[in-house]
Amino acid sequence: MCLLILLELSALILIVAGWNTGPRKEIYYEPEEVKAAIVTCGGLSPGLNDVIRQIVFTLETYGVKNIVGIPFGYRGFFEKGLKEMPLSRDLVENINLSGGSFLGVSRGGAKTSEIVDSIQARRIDMLFVIGGNGSHAGANAIHEECRKRKLKVSVVAVPKTIDNDILFMDKTFGFDTAVEEAQRAINSAYIEARSAYHGIGLVKLMGRSSGFIAMHASLSSGQIDVCLIPEDLLQKSNATDASGNVILSDFGVHMQQKIKKHFKDIGVPADLKYIDPTYMVRACRANASDAILCTVLGQNAVHEAFAGFSGITSGVCNTHYVYLPIPEVITAPKHVNPNSRMWHRCLTSTGQPDFH
Amino acid sequence: MCLLILLELSALILIVAGWNTGPRKEIYYEPEEVKAAIVTCGGLSPGLNDVIRQIVFTLETYGVKNIVGIPFGYRGFFEKGLKEMPLSRDLVENINLSGGSFLGVSRGGAKTSEIVDSIQARRIDMLFVIGGNGSHAGANAIHEECRKRKLKVSVVAVPKTIDNDILFMDKTFGFDTAVEEAQRAINSAYIEARSAYHGIGLVKLMGRSSGFIAMHASLSSGQIDVCLIPEDLLQKSNATDASGNVILSDFGVHMQQKIKKHFKDIGVPADLKYIDPTYMVRACRANASDAILCTVLGQNAVHEAFAGFSGITSGVCNTHYVYLPIPEVITAPKHVNPNSRMWHRCLTSTGQPDFH
Amino acid sequence: MCLLILLELSALILIVAGWNTGPRKEIYYEPEEVKAAIVTCGGLSPGLNDVIRQIVFTLETYGVKNIVGIPFGYRGFFEKGLKEMPLSRDLVENINLSGGSFLGVSRGGAKTSEIVDSIQARRIDMLFVIGGNGSHAGANAIHEECRKRKLKVSVVAVPKTIDNDILFMDKTFGFDTAVEEAQRAINSAYIEARSAYHGIGLVKLMGRSSGFIAMHASLSSGQIDVCLIPEDLLQKSNATDASGNVILSDFGVHMQQKIKKHFKDIGVPADLKYIDPTYMVRACRANASDAILCTVLGQNAVHEAFAGFSGITSGVCNTHYVYLPIPEVITAPKHVNPNSRMWHRCLTSTGQPDFH
Amino acid sequence: MCLLILLELSALILIVAGWNTGPRKEIYYEPEEVKAAIVTCGGLSPGLNDVIRQIVFTLETYGVKNIVGIPFGYRGFFEKGLKEMPLSRDLVENINLSGGSFLGVSRGGAKTSEIVDSIQARRIDMLFVIGGNGSHAGANAIHEECRKRKLKVSVVAVPKTIDNDILFMDKTFGFDTAVEEAQRAINSAYIEARSAYHGIGLVKLMGRSSGFIAMHASLSSGQIDVCLIPEDLLQKSNATDASGNVILSDFGVHMQQKIKKHFKDIGVPADLKYIDPTYMVRACRANASDAILCTVLGQNAVHEAFAGFSGITSGVCNTHYVYLPIPEVITAPKHVNPNSRMWHRCLTSTGQPDFH
Repeated sequence: MCLLILLELSALILIVAGWNTGPRKEIYYEPEEVKAAIVTCGGLSPGLNDVIRQIVFTLETYGVKNIVGIPFGYRGFFEKGLKEMPLSRDLVENINLSGGSFLGVSRGGAKTSEIVDSIQARRIDMLFVIGGNGSHAGANAIHEECRKRKLKVSVVAVPKTIDNDILFMDKTFGFDTAVEEAQRAINSAYIEARSAYHGIGLVKLMGRSSGFIAMHASLSSGQIDVCLIPEDLLQKSNATDASGNVILSDFGVHMQQKIKKHFKDIGVPADLKYIDPTYMVRACRANASDAILCTVLGQNAVHEAFAGFSGITSGVCNTHYVYLPIPEVITAPKHVNPNSRMWHRCLTSTGQPDFH
Repeated sequence: MCLLILLELSALILIVAGWNTGPRKEIYYEPEEVKAAIVTCGGLSPGLNDVIRQIVFTLETYGVKNIVGIPFGYRGFFEKGLKEMPLSRDLVENINLSGGSFLGVSRGGAKTSEIVDSIQARRIDMLFVIGGNGSHAGANAIHEECRKRKLKVSVVAVPKTIDNDILFMDKTFGFDTAVEEAQRAINSAYIEARSAYHGIGLVKLMGRSSGFIAMHASLSSGQIDVCLIPEDLLQKSNATDASGNVILSDFGVHMQQKIKKHFKDIGVPADLKYIDPTYMVRACRANASDAILCTVLGQNAVHEAFAGFSGITSGVCNTHYVYLPIPEVITAPKHVNPNSRMWHRCLTSTGQPDFH
Repeated sequence: MCLLILLELSALILIVAGWNTGPRKEIYYEPEEVKAAIVTCGGLSPGLNDVIRQIVFTLETYGVKNIVGIPFGYRGFFEKGLKEMPLSRDLVENINLSGGSFLGVSRGGAKTSEIVDSIQARRIDMLFVIGGNGSHAGANAIHEECRKRKLKVSVVAVPKTIDNDILFMDKTFGFDTAVEEAQRAINSAYIEARSAYHGIGLVKLMGRSSGFIAMHASLSSGQIDVCLIPEDLLQKSNATDASGNVILSDFGVHMQQKIKKHFKDIGVPADLKYIDPTYMVRACRANASDAILCTVLGQNAVHEAFAGFSGITSGVCNTHYVYLPIPEVITAPKHVNPNSRMWHRCLTSTGQPDFH
Repeated sequence: MCLLILLELSALILIVAGWNTGPRKEIYYEPEEVKAAIVTCGGLSPGLNDVIRQIVFTLETYGVKNIVGIPFGYRGFFEKGLKEMPLSRDLVENINLSGGSFLGVSRGGAKTSEIVDSIQARRIDMLFVIGGNGSHAGANAIHEECRKRKLKVSVVAVPKTIDNDILFMDKTFGFDTAVEEAQRAINSAYIEARSAYHGIGLVKLMGRSSGFIAMHASLSSGQIDVCLIPEDLLQKSNATDASGNVILSDFGVHMQQKIKKHFKDIGVPADLKYIDPTYMVRACRANASDAILCTVLGQNAVHEAFAGFSGITSGVCNTHYVYLPIPEVITAPKHVNPNSRMWHRCLTSTGQPDFH
């Protein structure tokens, strides 16, 4: 289902043609007069620095001289003591060699009117927002508030979600690296389980409501007996149930206790090793494939801003680089379809029964 | 151009629907009676063992008990002293943890009639050929010879080319790992060049006639000033020229000499560091993304054989896993289009002039 | 202090000369008639498979044909259903490429008389015990029981403690790899802390009573502001105090709560990221330096057994490979000396005050 | 022999006690008035940036404010257009995350009187030279010329040789990393050789006259059948012979040709894969163990300069950190002793005959 919808949509996009991204013959701003700002919101994802870096590079290629970073997410717009950082090619040249965000991140805090006051006061013409669903909603609110105030500000987003749960997108940056890095944790759990007497390894991977990392890590690792994903499990449990909350809040620990209890109940000693590699996965630098994705997304975000677009976001859809209106992509998170071929390939590969 | 053709074709494929791969309700063989053989041909590419392993797993899932590996490419069919190896889940369980081919590879040697004699003598029902363009041609010849002799043999190929130069395919297995590993060589050359007085780093990457590895490695590394690809250069040089041969046979060494000579001629000392990482790139184990691709291709190859197809090959086309008739995909190698957006993104990223 | 004692002891050892390890001209067993057994006890440490592999190689070089592995620690001697595994060069050739223990490990269970009954019943002539302090005590008890029963059995140990807390030894295998791998966790914590608004990173490393991993990881990482080690802290706290237990049982979680409470109390928001990389560190394969150490220790253990020694253990002391009587090395764990130069170098490097 | 001499010497050093390095109660310079310079000479070795960084940190801890880097080795003292770089903790904070030398390196160019003129003109009080044998000779000549001119300049060296061929030293920084990285090349050669029909892998490692990297890499890899070292081979060949030059100038290529010719002569097809990983090994960043060594050596070099020493070098000898007069350590390179236990352990591990 999901895949077919995706295809039709992408076909549509290609027919209307102009939606394909890239540099335009006519640009909407005088580069020398532009002040561009970059902000990174939410949690870490591998590749944040690659996107920042490439936006700076591309802005400089256009001739923009006034580029700043807003520190620690939207908070940097209104919190006293946080100052914008002047950015240049020299400064960001090697930031992609480290994980994390050179500008700092933080969650929440999107008081739209205050932020737009700040944008106005700082005379920002282009705002690049790298963030997840919530930050996209914030970016769209900023875009609309700017329209209302008749401010000529381009608000262009780049989706950042390590979980790969953005609608219409083939993949989001950081996801590929996360799957790669998850292998380390899985391999450790496998080694521990194999080396122990009645050993069991349990690894919690990211994706609160979408199991893409778990599914892909299972397919690539080949060392997994059972892969559980939220889409699979939550359809069985009662989502409004009180224990539903427990499941969502700390499912790894929950499973750990359940498994231990089960083996205690049946009188079999079990040596369970539980690994939660979250921070070690998301603080990585981008792998090559994500670095390429970040390079293209960063370049395209700048092309889009110069083409005069606002309230849009960048991505790769059906192997094509496209831009889409923000409201379309944030209507819902993308999920693993438990009827899809990919999920069945995962089941074939692990040999587990279909709980669905 | 290339991309558009690709899209139309994939649309076509989806319309004819049955071409999408996956398990079928009706299968063409009795699994218990099947003898399946796997052969790996040509040079190494990361992921060979992942494909072998997954073919064995999937055959066993179908219930096949007689699975063998043909050692050292097609040579294993006719060279005395080379014996087929019985394969099983237990044996291949962990072969994906190492690079290379568990079965061994070798080049050439496709004497079709001898091979089919051997297939007949060994009573092989399914032959899985993992190899490049030449080996695909060989596989197709075997398929046709089997038809001619009225042998009920399914010959199914999986494209193996680290260069990613197979027509219609989004990517071939090993390519992503190669781009990742090329980073090490590039980073070393960059460090050497930066640390030296008048330092220059030169890295030769794979892709005799197609520059995909070089282009992608440039995009992901961000440490490159100039990226040269065969498509770019050979249009300028005279391909029939005697020096054309030199260029093709050892272009890295050729460039190294040219650069040294140039700086000697202009009287500037230059400290050139040349790296050819070929074997270290191709002997790697597959990264996560290639491992997933190999898992799916391996599963699909078996589904196709059981569906009764022969003379076909597996791949991913426009994000969909498909199978295609071998002759279609080997008409020509896929090339980087020097007018494509991807190549221009690479130029933007390196800042080099467009030699094209 | 510690270092000087070490030096004098090693000088002593060198004066008595014979204690230096290596092959002997006269050997005490007929290799063809020897049955040798290997057992790995306790938790995982990188390099276990390297030692197993090298013991097997060296035994085969001597001409031993009957080599077995006892599964899952001492438990393998008495638990029904656990069978000894025949070992050979072919079987163990590549086990060093994976972490963990090929034979399996488990804790405790050293019922000396039962084990010696089993040794007698199995006609084992040489027993190689790879384990920590407790398993060394067990090995010595086995050795003494064999003496009492007049059994001609060589019991030779190889110290396995990732914490590097064995008296007289420069380092134990796995320690160097652990320090290397700890860098990943530290770097992740550093990236998270730097990218967060009021970010703090906290990493718990192994070493219940000895802080060598933490000290060395701090010295090598250069990204740490404060390094706490048990030797430093426990001298301040009351070891017999009830909270002493809490500290020992889960000091990382304890610190995490203390830090959060502190910042809450002073009204400053703090974003703490806590990483416990234990399993990912200890399940690694050995790095090159540990692999060399394991190779030498494995060879020496076999030389010592053939020289007729029993009740001894192998190690590297003051750069020399030596063997020592088991009781000497297990009198107490080795500790970081908070007055040592190395600890002061660590303080200089982090810039933290001397809590001692 | 070598080891015993080493031990006696280290015993001697410990008896004269003051030779142990570390901070002193009385220092010889007013930190606020000191101008300190750092220069890196010769080829790259992993850890150069760690040493530079730690020297800067420790100088700042003493209170030194005027710290400069001399670019591109001794050449930076006299070549026009090369300017000294002011160094500070902030600037060098993360340089250890990359390989290479932050200051640049170059070979040769030690015109002592010109250099000392420059030192005098720049009013440098402390000169830290990180380099190999030749640069140490240069440092000593500078030290002596300063004495002659009655200049109060402390010239303190840190030995940089990836080959580990410095007399009296347990190991030099970069060596451990080199052995670790060499594994990649060895593993690639092994995979290529195993996967090929009649495959042979050949890897050239560093160490023109000393085979420590090769010996240690063989011991740690366990995938090698024959390890050749200069000490082993050159005693068989005629060192004054014309072909001796060839051997020294490009022994890897020489061996490659010999092996190919041999198999051609005996009519056996052989598929030889030759890997020269030199730049990829030496451009790495330091591993944890080398990073610790660099940290201590960098700190000690500063302590020694403040203690008023000159014409000395730092190192680790028999597990103790010491300083030694430069002339003593550069009398000859350290060699692998083909009669040593370590070499015989290597022979045991590879199973090769003793060519010696």
